[in-house]
Amino acid sequence: MSSRKEFRDLAEPEEAHAAIASLDLSPAPETVSLDEARGRVLAERLDAELDVPGFDRASMDGYAVRAKDTFGADEADPVTLELAGAVHAGVEPDVEVTEGTCAEISTGAVMPPGADAVVMVERTDETDDGAVLFRTAVAPGDHVMLAGADVAAGARALGPGTRITPREIGLLSALGVDEVPVRGKPTVGIVSTGDELVRPGDDLNSDAGQIYDVNSYTIAAGVEEAGGEAKLYPHAGDDYEEMERILLDAADECDLVLSSGSTSASAVDVIYRVIEDRGELLLHGVAVKPGKPMLVGSLGGGAYVGLPGYPVSALTIFQTFVAPAIRRAAGVPEPQTATVDGKMAVRERYAEGRMRLMPVGLLEDEEGDTLVYPVDKGSGATTSLVEADGIVEVSPDTSYLAEGEDVTVRLFSPDVRPPSILGVGEDDPALSRLLDRLDNPRYLPVGSREGLRRLRDGLPDVAVVAGPAERDIESVDLGGWTREWGLVVPADNPAGVSGLTDLVDGELRFVNRDRNSGLRTSFEDALDELADERGVERHRLVEAIDGFDLTVKAHESPARKVRAGRADVGLGLRATASELGLGFVPLGTQSVVVRANPDRTDKQGVQALEAVLTANDDLITSLDGFESA
Amino acid sequence: MSSRKEFRDLAEPEEAHAAIASLDLSPAPETVSLDEARGRVLAERLDAELDVPGFDRASMDGYAVRAKDTFGADEADPVTLELAGAVHAGVEPDVEVTEGTCAEISTGAVMPPGADAVVMVERTDETDDGAVLFRTAVAPGDHVMLAGADVAAGARALGPGTRITPREIGLLSALGVDEVPVRGKPTVGIVSTGDELVRPGDDLNSDAGQIYDVNSYTIAAGVEEAGGEAKLYPHAGDDYEEMERILLDAADECDLVLSSGSTSASAVDVIYRVIEDRGELLLHGVAVKPGKPMLVGSLGGGAYVGLPGYPVSALTIFQTFVAPAIRRAAGVPEPQTATVDGKMAVRERYAEGRMRLMPVGLLEDEEGDTLVYPVDKGSGATTSLVEADGIVEVSPDTSYLAEGEDVTVRLFSPDVRPPSILGVGEDDPALSRLLDRLDNPRYLPVGSREGLRRLRDGLPDVAVVAGPAERDIESVDLGGWTREWGLVVPADNPAGVSGLTDLVDGELRFVNRDRNSGLRTSFEDALDELADERGVERHRLVEAIDGFDLTVKAHESPARKVRAGRADVGLGLRATASELGLGFVPLGTQSVVVRANPDRTDKQGVQALEAVLTANDDLITSLDGFESA
Repeated sequence: MSSRKEFRDLAEPEEAHAAIASLDLSPAPETVSLDEARGRVLAERLDAELDVPGFDRASMDGYAVRAKDTFGADEADPVTLELAGAVHAGVEPDVEVTEGTCAEISTGAVMPPGADAVVMVERTDETDDGAVLFRTAVAPGDHVMLAGADVAAGARALGPGTRITPREIGLLSALGVDEVPVRGKPTVGIVSTGDELVRPGDDLNSDAGQIYDVNSYTIAAGVEEAGGEAKLYPHAGDDYEEMERILLDAADECDLVLSSGSTSASAVDVIYRVIEDRGELLLHGVAVKPGKPMLVGSLGGGAYVGLPGYPVSALTIFQTFVAPAIRRAAGVPEPQTATVDGKMAVRERYAEGRMRLMPVGLLEDEEGDTLVYPVDKGSGATTSLVEADGIVEVSPDTSYLAEGEDVTVRLFSPDVRPPSILGVGEDDPALSRLLDRLDNPRYLPVGSREGLRRLRDGLPDVAVVAGPAERDIESVDLGGWTREWGLVVPADNPAGVSGLTDLVDGELRFVNRDRNSGLRTSFEDALDELADERGVERHRLVEAIDGFDLTVKAHESPARKVRAGRADVGLGLRATASELGLGFVPLGTQSVVVRANPDRTDKQGVQALEAVLTANDDLITSLDGFESA
Repeated sequence: MSSRKEFRDLAEPEEAHAAIASLDLSPAPETVSLDEARGRVLAERLDAELDVPGFDRASMDGYAVRAKDTFGADEADPVTLELAGAVHAGVEPDVEVTEGTCAEISTGAVMPPGADAVVMVERTDETDDGAVLFRTAVAPGDHVMLAGADVAAGARALGPGTRITPREIGLLSALGVDEVPVRGKPTVGIVSTGDELVRPGDDLNSDAGQIYDVNSYTIAAGVEEAGGEAKLYPHAGDDYEEMERILLDAADECDLVLSSGSTSASAVDVIYRVIEDRGELLLHGVAVKPGKPMLVGSLGGGAYVGLPGYPVSALTIFQTFVAPAIRRAAGVPEPQTATVDGKMAVRERYAEGRMRLMPVGLLEDEEGDTLVYPVDKGSGATTSLVEADGIVEVSPDTSYLAEGEDVTVRLFSPDVRPPSILGVGEDDPALSRLLDRLDNPRYLPVGSREGLRRLRDGLPDVAVVAGPAERDIESVDLGGWTREWGLVVPADNPAGVSGLTDLVDGELRFVNRDRNSGLRTSFEDALDELADERGVERHRLVEAIDGFDLTVKAHESPARKVRAGRADVGLGLRATASELGLGFVPLGTQSVVVRANPDRTDKQGVQALEAVLTANDDLITSLDGFESA
């Protein structure tokens, strides 16, 4: 294993920023049609090539007149002018306004020769003999927009670097511009590496350790959000020739090549060698956590950045180091919503001597202030992607972040919003349905026990607790339901399981739930009861159950293992057995209670949950074995 | 003109919101591929259909072991295990770890049968005889991610209504989802009306009063920004049958039809009749300014809204009433950047008894606070589109907005940013080039005199003043240049113009600049001098000049009229004459000075302008007749 590369000389984050900034990602300007120009950035200054309007234009419905013919007219003493004709919008006038005459005119029409003002129709009356009575005087130019008064030919219309939004589209339209010179979008090639990666949608062979490629599409979406154009390349394995060919192809076709996807040191080694052989390696390894294995260099004249393999790490490094460079090249400013200021909700220790890009979740307190808490499930967890909202940069000099400390969060996307409510606790199918009725909730199914612990520590808005609670904490009950639990067995109950005794006394492969689960608590209580009955210690019964320590964290997982034939009995709910078409042996009924943080009961999201709880009995009771409390 | 429709029963704005909300714009859900899902909204809850990871996965490079074989190992007393083989990522293990053995394993590889933990490579050494020395003990499960530990099959992965950003793309990838059920984008048909409208890019006949269609593309961009899909229909004239056919086609193909573009009452009348005959008119006319002519109804079972014709009015009514309905139908939340809070920079009177949607510009003061000022160039001006940033709703009960009053501005687009600097004053070609070097400047070429007046009132950051100033005001000079001015004549100077006397004494058609222009001031000073010389009053000379009162507002316009053969002489700059290939008769040189608001000299945009001024002498002097001061 001597070929494994160690990164000993880590670059400082500023060096990484500088190295990426030194690479030229700028694409050539291009021309797009007006209907595709929104969101693009003007490549050059646009001067008006014509006057807007291109003619003296009536800006009211009424009559075109020679202003001096109306002098002295008022309500008491109107002036009468002959009607010489009419001019409508979009038609060349075929009438001239001479002394003592007028012409009917529509808004937007060309002023007829001779006329220099418009009297609005409301201040006139037609007489029976076809003349017009004017009850007001006008000055020359009244209700007329002179040619070029809006935009004059030759005038600076829009500056270079202007972001094109609907209103700029409007001005471009007025100038007749239908081909817009815009800055090109940098093309970013994404090469994912690792023999184990499979594209989403393709078949997965889990036995061979295959997993879906998370980074390619995630980073591609990040590239497009930053104003670039993403191009996905086929997966490259660890083979040098293949990697070299794909990387050089990508470098040839793109302004920037990103490699991403592999957590394997050998794949990183191969890339490292390709860059060294065929390009220039500017730095390898940056003193940030995560991101040690980051590479920056050039390849075939183009720019190259290697991202770490774990999804959260890859997105973090991308958003921190690469997205700003793509935005710069595209001419797109950083969105105002890219960062959010908040206060640390907990104390967080840190003392690793390199910068930490700490994944965090966001939460609003009752006053609407933003609370920030670290999310650390290990970088390998893809669920961290949606449980964290962004990252906080913690400098190497910081030994801890105090509770209440002000921090700035760089969001994973400018479109990320803090959840309306943060719930923790039991994994429950009725709760899942209720959550569907809420706008942007976040629920972490950490189990009843862990949920209660977190509620006690004050972070979440609510905890959902199933079964008997070991300890009591201050909280406000928002409502709840009961659910029937027991043993999930195959559809026809081939082993004839009738209760707990069969599990203890028989030769059955069992799948348990983890110790945080309320189901597990009720299950252990039932075992205690049986132990009491039999006059033995519980551990005797536990030891007799094959698989008691085989625990899974999601409520359906034991049942799914039974359905897959990998277990005979699973701890679960009647509702789950029904839904998966399995058999069920009831052991009891337990309560599920939604308990709110007493400080957050006025929070909008909590009140919305309470409303949903009261209004959706039918949704709860439609689940087998569920009853509203 | 009896057919002209008057809107007498104006609906309240809330009724208009309610009427639009009562229309069903919701499209059917659709399925998009993962790479097109960014920015879309999930139509339904997505539960995991598989475990992630799908197998027990090594989360470190190292050795897979039976944990109990390492018990007791430490630096001082390492444990040695036989190396039974190796497992790499993406490959099915072909080795079993039995008592006393271990297997080399890569991050991401499947745990081989028998092994229950991984020892990281850094805590091991290979021995010469192919065995491995372990210098640490591990517990079962160490450095192993169990199947389903990240996401369990059956678990709630993403809720309905979730906005899909890069991180959600990541979770969908991990779950292997490549077809994503999303809410449909409401299709919005845009029918523009008015015989005078021409599509940008097509030829324009100004003599016939044709103008480019501004609203269609502007509103289409607004529709897309709000999450809809815009579909442009051919222009409809005022003909009933044609209008009926186009509107019914659009209603058939779209979730919502908008008509827009015509300022002509007769076209509005025709639409009104079509809606009454073939659909249902819910309301006509809303008590807002602008927006009186707004229509809301249904047509062929679909929804219909008629927008006013003037571009700023159309965009204002669209953003206020229609965009929220499109966002609701698309499931897209209002962007956080859609509104901005600021303070009125000036007092604004208002007393019209209906709600006013007041177009405003934004400006940052030296402290970075947002100042808001009304922009009122008349709704017909398309330049208002880019001179205003958004609108302030002023209630009918408000008689005035005080200076310093807090207001909320709804931006014309969430991408609109306040300008980095607001300049006003002379229209000058060197200035145009300098502005190109600044990020997002706003410059209103209102002329030197008006510029000074506004600077005195305190709103703008800088005023650019050409020629002698009539009065002095407190300001800080940032720099400037001089420019040669005079009479622009045709290329070969056919009339042999040699100076001012020819203009006064000859039979020449002249084009002047407006009274706010610094060029005009210098020109009048020259006339004064000539009048003194001749011992006559100036008005005698003025009256002798044919076209003295024919004034235009942009600096190139007189020269362009000369080039077009519509005048013999124009007031202008040597630089303009050179650029347009015209002749030039010099009359003098005048200074152009950039004068900063004394309260804003520390503002970043002002300092950037000052830096650009000092650094770009060459850019100024490359213009004919320009010298840096």
